[in-house]
Amino acid sequence: MKNLSKSFTYGHYILTARKEAGEMKTRNKDYIAAGTVNWVSQISFEPPMIVIAVGQKSDLNETINYSERFTLHFLSDDNKKMVEAFAAKSDIDGNKINGFSFTKKDHQVILDDVAGYAECKVVKEFNMGDHTVYIGEVINFHMPDEGTNLICTKDVPSKYVEEIAKV
Amino acid sequence: MKNLSKSFTYGHYILTARKEAGEMKTRNKDYIAAGTVNWVSQISFEPPMIVIAVGQKSDLNETINYSERFTLHFLSDDNKKMVEAFAAKSDIDGNKINGFSFTKKDHQVILDDVAGYAECKVVKEFNMGDHTVYIGEVINFHMPDEGTNLICTKDVPSKYVEEIAKV
Repeated sequence: MKNLSKSFTYGHYILTARKEAGEMKTRNKDYIAAGTVNWVSQISFEPPMIVIAVGQKSDLNETINYSERFTLHFLSDDNKKMVEAFAAKSDIDGNKINGFSFTKKDHQVILDDVAGYAECKVVKEFNMGDHTVYIGEVINFHMPDEGTNLICTKDVPSKYVEEIAKV
Repeated sequence: MKNLSKSFTYGHYILTARKEAGEMKTRNKDYIAAGTVNWVSQISFEPPMIVIAVGQKSDLNETINYSERFTLHFLSDDNKKMVEAFAAKSDIDGNKINGFSFTKKDHQVILDDVAGYAECKVVKEFNMGDHTVYIGEVINFHMPDEGTNLICTKDVPSKYVEEIAKV
């Protein structure tokens, strides 16, 4: 069923998670993880909730398990380069992840130059097949320009989509 | 957070479910339900699994609960009219749903003139907010032409997307 994965259309999103050093006894640096994800959908209007699936070996998984929170970033045409940049292992240098600046806020890592973001707290999680599924309740949603053209898997070459899906 | 729902990109899919009359003591006609859905994502490569969210008051919900199976249909450019046709309550007349012909197969209802379909058995379900979430394992996937252009929420006016999401 290798072509099953190509039969869905998704947005491109960057998922970030952070566990603060102050909350841990054995570590003096924050845990920060980030990656491009496609397997995302809203699942409830009220309260607003989303589902995401993350590969079980991903650093994202470990950090979300620590923090029980994550932030989903929405990407515009201007953010196309981020899809590829965040498909591999993350490189964190000062206030930049993979060369893109971020700000720490509300226990979260917020990427600066994206179309918008949704901060979520995990309300349910379980392993299913080769991924971990998280249900997040959206506790803060920020999208300054409603008219932004958000990118999807049709806008970016499928080779990235396939790589990303395996992260 | 009314604009949260507009911040995701989805494919357009028709979901069908059928409970055969022969499996019921009190009814001599199959239960059949169908509707356009957008809140869909794959969540595992192996075994292949998908997640869907269905409004708790939908007929689809009731029929999936009876049958523990559903079929997700993938739509091409030629199927654009189905998005709207299946957004309202289904009208079943002989071998047509909302004017589109279907075939009964493997306990399922398969729409005839679509790009492809995935037959699923429910492996997990739970209510979450105002929707019911189903995890389905794909037991049969059929997509004869890999090159088909599948339609998404960017291709169809958002007024349908919003109506559909509330079904």
